This record gives sequence, C-alpha cells and structure tokens, in this order.
Amino acid sequence: MTASDTFLAQAAALLGPRGLTSDPDLMTPWLTDWRGRFTGRALALASPASTEEVAGLVKLCAAHGVPIVPQGGNSSMSGGATPDEEGGSLLLSLRRMNAIREVDGEGRKATCEAGVVLQTLHEAVAEAELRFPLTLGGKGTATIGGLISTNAGGGQVLRHGSMRAQVLGIEAVLADGSVFSQLTPLKKDNRGFDLKQLLIGSEGTLGVVTAATLRLLPAVADRVVIWAGLPSLKAARALLLYCEDAIGEAVEQFEVMPQSCLEAVIAYLPDARAPLAEPHAWHALIEVVADRTSADGLRERCETAMAEAFERALVEDATFAASEAQAEAFWLLRESIAPAERARGAAVQHDISVPVERMPEFVEAAVPEIEAAWPGTEAIAFGHLGDGNVHFHVIAPAGTAMSWAAGQGKEISHQVHDLVTRWGGSISAEHGIGQLKRDELARLGDPVALDIMRRVKAALDPAGLLNPGKLI
Amino acid sequence: MTASDTFLAQAAALLGPRGLTSDPDLMTPWLTDWRGRFTGRALALASPASTEEVAGLVKLCAAHGVPIVPQGGNSSMSGGATPDEEGGSLLLSLRRMNAIREVDGEGRKATCEAGVVLQTLHEAVAEAELRFPLTLGGKGTATIGGLISTNAGGGQVLRHGSMRAQVLGIEAVLADGSVFSQLTPLKKDNRGFDLKQLLIGSEGTLGVVTAATLRLLPAVADRVVIWAGLPSLKAARALLLYCEDAIGEAVEQFEVMPQSCLEAVIAYLPDARAPLAEPHAWHALIEVVADRTSADGLRERCETAMAEAFERALVEDATFAASEAQAEAFWLLRESIAPAERARGAAVQHDISVPVERMPEFVEAAVPEIEAAWPGTEAIAFGHLGDGNVHFHVIAPAGTAMSWAAGQGKEISHQVHDLVTRWGGSISAEHGIGQLKRDELARLGDPVALDIMRRVKAALDPAGLLNPGKLI
Repeated sequence: MTASDTFLAQAAALLGPRGLTSDPDLMTPWLTDWRGRFTGRALALASPASTEEVAGLVKLCAAHGVPIVPQGGNSSMSGGATPDEEGGSLLLSLRRMNAIREVDGEGRKATCEAGVVLQTLHEAVAEAELRFPLTLGGKGTATIGGLISTNAGGGQVLRHGSMRAQVLGIEAVLADGSVFSQLTPLKKDNRGFDLKQLLIGSEGTLGVVTAATLRLLPAVADRVVIWAGLPSLKAARALLLYCEDAIGEAVEQFEVMPQSCLEAVIAYLPDARAPLAEPHAWHALIEVVADRTSADGLRERCETAMAEAFERALVEDATFAASEAQAEAFWLLRESIAPAERARGAAVQHDISVPVERMPEFVEAAVPEIEAAWPGTEAIAFGHLGDGNVHFHVIAPAGTAMSWAAGQGKEISHQVHDLVTRWGGSISAEHGIGQLKRDELARLGDPVALDIMRRVKAALDPAGLLNPGKLI
Repeated sequence: MTASDTFLAQAAALLGPRGLTSDPDLMTPWLTDWRGRFTGRALALASPASTEEVAGLVKLCAAHGVPIVPQGGNSSMSGGATPDEEGGSLLLSLRRMNAIREVDGEGRKATCEAGVVLQTLHEAVAEAELRFPLTLGGKGTATIGGLISTNAGGGQVLRHGSMRAQVLGIEAVLADGSVFSQLTPLKKDNRGFDLKQLLIGSEGTLGVVTAATLRLLPAVADRVVIWAGLPSLKAARALLLYCEDAIGEAVEQFEVMPQSCLEAVIAYLPDARAPLAEPHAWHALIEVVADRTSADGLRERCETAMAEAFERALVEDATFAASEAQAEAFWLLRESIAPAERARGAAVQHDISVPVERMPEFVEAAVPEIEAAWPGTEAIAFGHLGDGNVHFHVIAPAGTAMSWAAGQGKEISHQVHDLVTRWGGSISAEHGIGQLKRDELARLGDPVALDIMRRVKAALDPAGLLNPGKLI
C-alpha cells in the first residue's frame, strides 16, 4: 500500500461509499473550471455529508500532508476551485451539504449549509415572503460556501453590499480540523478580532466554510425598471447621483453599457429590440424596488424624478418597463452581454474596479489607450457604475483563433492591470484571484498588504494545505 | 545614558518639542482611564502630527523593544488605552492628528485622521447636509481612531450597524512601522483577505489606526420620537418586530428600560417627568427618521402604525414627542440612566449581548437569578433591544462602600459572564475587552477562536509591542 492508498482507505472509511470516489467518470466534470480554462487532477473527490465529516477529513489530510481544494458549484471565474495538474490534492466538494437548516422569518435570517445553491435559497425564502438580496448569473450552480469564500458581488451591491454584508454568522473547518463555529449571530459582539471577516473572501485558503447564517430582507412588493439613453458615462454617473438623491435608497441597481454592446446583444438575441427608438452613446438600466412599507407611490415618485431629470437634461431619453414581461426583457439584454460577446470569438475579460467617482474618466481613457496599443481589437466596458466596477473586455480582431487569449491576450491583460493599478483600482472587483490572477496580484499588489496576507496564511495554515496555489 | 534615555532622545528628535513629553503634569491626565479604574505609568507621552511620524515612531519602538499603548480620547470603557504600572511603555496619543481631510458630499464619504473627535465629525458633515450615522455618550471626547479600534456601537446599530459598517477605508501603522494604506475606498475589491476588517475592533493590538474614510448618509429631514409603555420585555420585542414590519427601515432606534430605571432617573433629574401617566413594567423609546426622499407622511405613517399597535394590544400606552424639545427630553431620560445609577452608589456594570430573539427570556431569567444569589442587590437591564444588547447592572445594597465593586462585585461579574456564555452570548457587546475583561475572555472564550486570535497576533506583532496586556 502506498502512502496515498493508506490515506484514501482511511478517507473512505470515514466518509462511506457516497462520500469518496476516484472514478474518473465521476471526477472529470469537476476537474475543469466552468469556463474551461483550467484542468487539474486529484487523488479523489470527497463529498462529506456533515461538518463533522469535513472536520475529520481535514484532520486526516493534515496528518497525511494531503492538500485540499474546496469546491462549491465549480463556477469560479478565476479557477479558484480547480486543483493543479500534479494530482496530489483531494478535491473536497461541499455539494452534499445542501440543507437549509432554518429560515427565521421573524429574525429575518436563514442558516444554510455550504452546498446550498443560491437559487434554492432564493426560492426557499420567497415562501416566507422574504428575499436574499444578492444574485448573479451563476445562481443556478453557485453555492453559499463558494459565494462566501469569494465574497461574491452582483448588481445589488449598489444598495445592499457584497456577500460580506449578508453574512451574519459562519461555521468553518480550519487547517487543523478544528471547527470555528459562530453560526448564532450576535448583532453586537466585541470579543476581539472578527474572524468571520477573515474567512469571507479568503477563497478557501484559511478554512473550509461549512455553513452560514445569512440576513434576509422583506420581499419586494413593487419594482420599477427604467431604461435610459445617455450621451456619456459621465452623464450616466450624474443621473445615478440624481436618482439616489431624488428617489433615495429604493434605487437598487444601476447598470451601464455602451451602444456597441447593446447592438451586439440585439444581433445575438432572436426577437430582441432596443428599448429606445434612437441610439445613444451609453445606456443605463435602473431598477428601483420597494418592500410593503415603502411601495406606496413608488412608480409615481420614479416618474416625477425622471420627468425632472429630463427637464434638467440629465437624460436624453428614457422608458419605463410597462409590465413584468418587459422588465424581464430589459434585464435579458443586460444579461446577454457576455454570451453575445462569447459568440463573437476570442476575447479577454477583466473584472476591475476603480474609485467610484473616477469610473467615467477611467473608461474614457482606457478604451482608446488599449485599442491604440493593440490595433484591430475592440475594448468595451460595461457593468456596475455605482460600484466603480467595470467589466472591461478586449475583443480580438474578427477571425482570430481562440488561442489568442493565451498569447497576445495575456499581454493585453497585463497592460489593463497596470492601467487599473495606476488609477488606484483593483484587478479583481468581484471574481477573486484564484489561480487566474495570482501572479498578477503578486506583481501589482501592495507589498504591505501582501506581506500581512502571507503572515496570516502561514499562521493559520502553516503546512499550506488549504487550496494551495490560489490567491497567495 | 540608559537605553530608555537613548530611545527618548531619538523619539524627541523625530517628533519635535510638541510631539513628546515626559512632564508628569502633562502626562497624568492620560494615565488613568476616564472611569478611574486603571492607572498606569509610561516612559513618555508621544503626540505625533502625521502618519509619517507615527510610522517613524513605531519603527523606533520596534528597534528598541519599547511597547506602545495607542490612545484616542481616553474614553475606553475597558481600560483599553491605559498602560500598565511598569512604566516601560510609550503612551501614543493620536489626538494631534485631528484633520478632517475631506468631506465628499457627492460620494457621501469623509476622510479623517484618527484624532478627530466624533462630535466634530458630526458638525462638519452636517454643514454638507449629511450625517454620520453613529453616536454615543462619549461623542465629545471619543476619537475616530478609538471608535474604529473598538468597533464602537450605540443605539443606531439597529439600523446602520456598528463602526465596522461605517468604515470604507483605513490607514494604519503596523508593528514594524510599515503603513497599510487603503484609504481610497473601492466599493468592490476582491484581492484577498480583507485586512481592514482585521484592524477594526482589534483594540490597537495589530496596528495603530491613523486615518479612515467613513460613509455618510443624507441628513435627517424628519424624526418621530415615541415613548411606549409595555407589560413585559417580550411585549417590547413584539412591538419592535411590528414597527419594523409596519414602518420599515425608518425605525432607527428602539431602546428599552424597566419602570425602576425610569423612576431612578426621574428622582435624579431635576424637573423630569414620566412621559406616560401610568407606570408600566417596561418602557420603549423609539426613534423613526427619514431623509428628504422618504420624509413625506412619516408622522402619519407612525401614527397609523401605533394606532393599529394599540388596537392589537401590542402596547399599553404610547405618546409622540410633540416638539423637538420634548423629543430631547425623552432622550435625556434614556441618557441619564447611567449617571442616575452612579449617584446611587456602588454597582457593577455588564455590557453583554445574547441572540436578539432570546433577550427578553434572558433578562427574565437573569435578574431574579442574580438577585437571589446576592441578597440585597438590585439587578437592572436596559438598552438596545433590537441588537440583543443589554446593559446589565447590579447595584449594591444601599450604603455599601464603593470598594464593593472590586470585591463581591467581581464575583457577581463572573457569575453574570458565566450566565451570558451559557446563553450563547457575548461578555462584551460594545465596550471591547481591553484589560478589564481580558482574563474573562481567556476563561470563557471559544478556544478555537482564541487560538486563531493568538496566531494572528503573533504573526502581525511577533514581539508583542502593540498594546500589550490588552484583549489577548
């Protein structure tokens, strides 16, 4: 028996037949990230069913020096849940831990295990006339554990903050197999460092999140969806500030896209139509929502505000979705930007942020700079204006082979990251670092911050067994 | 020249004549905490004027092995800013760093140095028609650096969260004198561990906060202040849930006190009157606020809600403050609980929290348990119902000497802390650990959490020079 055979036999004994497999057919789907950029190998795929099993398994890994790659829905945008090619790691899936332990309507909170899929949570809390105020494209596969480990974002961050702001309590297994359990939320607790915060966004490098208590909000009672045409991104930001001032906290999402993006989506989607009659340099998709206590007169307030915005020349044109179906159609345009772009061929994507107030200026400077440096490419920027979060994509000249992304595309990415760093921004606004951006973080990150991260990592995972090769 | 003379000479050269003193007259006021519980000694009092000076000083301390005790307004409730009695530490005051660097009305944020006094910030942002949504009794002395280091709370946490939720960016000097600078807030930034979160609430044991960027909200356009009489604390919680359901997020504060508390305050304050005609077992003080976008009809909405609460028997009696003067008079009753109690003589205070939904049950169990165990004492609980945060005070029998607090009072505190720990609560909801509760945290804290804290502390401050003897 080799050392790894011994380890596998002990792991199998611990987890039972449903909890461990090294069958290639069962493992293969989980060894490549969903975008198909990274493929790794693993000793086995472990699927523990409880926190105790995770703890036992992590202890076993610690004893045998086996690295662990935690995985939720395998929808990381940065290869954060894919093992390396050496094959010595254990792939640790949390998907079997998918119980929603409690939905507490009175306390407006839910406790769920790490493997609960986001959409499942949405549906479960809707039954209690509540909502979980975070969503994103991968909601059908992304799990709560993954969302916490990557501090996931999305359009509603504008109003409700990222995943960090939704987590009231956490349970995680640490590198030595001990269980950090702080699931019962205390609204006020000043007993030292907030260790929960350290685990959120640490991409499984400091611990394996096994469960969490999440905050809920009253269900949406009414929503108003507005499409606005604007002459510039600067004008879009002025409109956002005006809306926040005139309509207040009900403004929940404010997404922007240039005309070229809209055109690409319309060409891609069957039967799609532009919401406004004329083209505009920029478009904003605005969602205003209210719960039962504030829904009275919501639409009227929005109409008054937009009429005034029109009078003040803050908007070129605007239309309100007349029905839920039309609201959905507006959102489909926004959500189809990425697939429409993928249909065009090779491209490199950058998920970046700059200080909110500098976003218009940044986009105006960055698009021509990149297009001039790389003739034939098209740079497009769209996304979450209110968060300073730009999805900055550079599309290869038509007909370029897909391998372009790994060659010239990589050089372009370096330049984009240099640029955003010079602007005081982040090379990862939403998607995390994973393995995709690890070297770029080491190259461009603040040395003081990197030094603290390395010290914390070494202190909590001295053997470096938790998600090695990711983040730092 | 002794080693400490050499250190002091170098520190004096670095900081200049205004930046360093060892004159006992100048130092004495800062060597005892404001509650008079702890008195220490120090090599000198350093008052650097800039982040660079703090960094230089911390480097110097590291080179000479001199421990540092950071201090803001010296209003710690836990002796967190008072040096020990050995006299080998440097007292590092941040009070000279009191510039508000920027108030950004458009971006609704302010950047201030650590020594800015809370009330000064309130006044500065009010001029821009904004507000900083956190306040507390010590606002005239507490500094931004201290508030961040202790993750300060207060009544508005119900709606806006504690200091942690207000901090957008931070600048701090670490144990080796390097400067962690993340003042320019990126609304979305997923480049690894959120180190800002680690510094917030770490009581100066991981770094010295030198500046911060804080979020601001639109100014309050209207407020409604309600005093309600209730048969029990359970009824008070039911009323809070009802109000949040009926009035929504405008409910900003919900404070509770028992009849005995109110009577003590009325006896203490000249010319004070009870807001309601009859006595009630419990009283709630409710503040509902709205900014310009949501102020329309606020009072009417509250009146309708309270009328319905009365019909549903959720409240025994209630009255609305008819003027700002009356609103202030209501709040004065709440704010005078502590001084009224101090006037009665010896007492021990506990700043504790339990899971929000268990607070009524906890108070009902804890008050008779403590009073039965310590005959002649009176236990009172009041505070922030919506946060599960109880100020649980045990008053000595009339005529007891003040030294009681350090003797029998200490035993009572142990029992209260045991009790709250059994209920899954926190021995420090708002006030932090400091030196007051350090041993209690070591005795009662979660061993897993304590272990991580000690590892993080050792990783970031291996020589243990930052605020030694506090927290851990």
